[in-house]
Amino acid sequence: MHILVTNDDGIHAPGIRALAAALRTLGKVTVVAPDRERSATGHAITVHRPLRVRRSADYPADDAYSVDGTPADCVKIAVEALLLDRFDLVISGINRGANLGTDVLYSGTVSAAVEAAILGLPAIAISLADFRDSGFEPAAQFAVKLAHEWRSKELPPDTLLNVNWPKAEVKGVVVTTLGRRRYANTFEKRQDPSGRDYFWMGGEVDKDETLDTDVWAVANGYASVTPIHFDLTNYKLISQVQSWDITL
Amino acid sequence: MHILVTNDDGIHAPGIRALAAALRTLGKVTVVAPDRERSATGHAITVHRPLRVRRSADYPADDAYSVDGTPADCVKIAVEALLLDRFDLVISGINRGANLGTDVLYSGTVSAAVEAAILGLPAIAISLADFRDSGFEPAAQFAVKLAHEWRSKELPPDTLLNVNWPKAEVKGVVVTTLGRRRYANTFEKRQDPSGRDYFWMGGEVDKDETLDTDVWAVANGYASVTPIHFDLTNYKLISQVQSWDITL
Repeated sequence: MHILVTNDDGIHAPGIRALAAALRTLGKVTVVAPDRERSATGHAITVHRPLRVRRSADYPADDAYSVDGTPADCVKIAVEALLLDRFDLVISGINRGANLGTDVLYSGTVSAAVEAAILGLPAIAISLADFRDSGFEPAAQFAVKLAHEWRSKELPPDTLLNVNWPKAEVKGVVVTTLGRRRYANTFEKRQDPSGRDYFWMGGEVDKDETLDTDVWAVANGYASVTPIHFDLTNYKLISQVQSWDITL
Repeated sequence: MHILVTNDDGIHAPGIRALAAALRTLGKVTVVAPDRERSATGHAITVHRPLRVRRSADYPADDAYSVDGTPADCVKIAVEALLLDRFDLVISGINRGANLGTDVLYSGTVSAAVEAAILGLPAIAISLADFRDSGFEPAAQFAVKLAHEWRSKELPPDTLLNVNWPKAEVKGVVVTTLGRRRYANTFEKRQDPSGRDYFWMGGEVDKDETLDTDVWAVANGYASVTPIHFDLTNYKLISQVQSWDITL
């Protein structure tokens, strides 16, 4: 089994090192990850400048490369340009901080997994609901379990999972839908020493108490596994829009 | 009617100026757009540095601001920080170049519209399948028609449309699904004067000849209107994943 590992916290982040090291029990592990933190980049790709790739020695993997681009760039370049062996699975993470609900749209970690699925490869994104930069081992072991289980299943080619691991002791694993994340007081307005305004994005997030969502699961001590896809067509609205008077 | 207009080609691009000017026949138009080109940024947001907002004079709109951030940042800051009047509709574009099929995931133009929908506002993304930086007028007039039609409908709060306008003479308007965009030969490898490799992303796109897709429509001279959504949950896979042996 050949697993491609990437992330959005950058190749030197402890989460990806823990993940790569753990996955080596399953087969060959190749890391292709951003050369620096690229979180909240969503599904950005780099088309206006060329990309550089650098081989990374002394890495806990069979082979490792850093790229001066986004997480989606890393998956694209690993699959389409580096002429590596074919990958069986792509795993992105372990992210420092959760990627839940509508927030997955902003997530470089999840976008890397989505990019893999677009390229026809099964993929997992995995995040730890903790910003301490430690404690990745249980989530890494779960990634091994999930990848192992994956191998024995006949899965549709568009299978893509988003995993979130809670901070505290884990009560169990639940398969969830994506919840809602609504932010309040999103921007903080400040003044620089010259008296000009600037805005910091931040804000508090509403609790989504809907059962069966990933937001609920992680808030209540469960690990969440959410099957996701990338078909943004809203099929339910098609017939309605067809009835509109928008002919030329 | 108060319309927020944004884009990813930047506030000075001719496409957004044409759109803003045309929409003024419908009501009040406020532009909040990136201060420079931010295409292919996907749904990136700016959380690691503060944002600056600058009022733009002499703009063909009732009010205009540039932001040193992404398209999604612009929508967030317009709705949540600038204390402007409530918006009835958000329109993002007119983009230079189409945003079709799976490519919508990379698109700053579409991500701005998705951000509006997350914030509870109906939204339209509109793109012109042409890189000449001219000829935006017919698409701008269609945006007016669509926004006008929109006002008279009882629409669900998550209504979000992705419009693509063809380059040549338009045969008509079709309501479509998102097609597939598969790229071949995605990277071109070159060497710099020091002999080190670098990679340019590019590649040719396969034609998706599936009827009813946006890719087919625009390739065949039709304007496409695709209802989209941002619920990435893959509901069909939930029961399958629940049957896996992934308990702790």
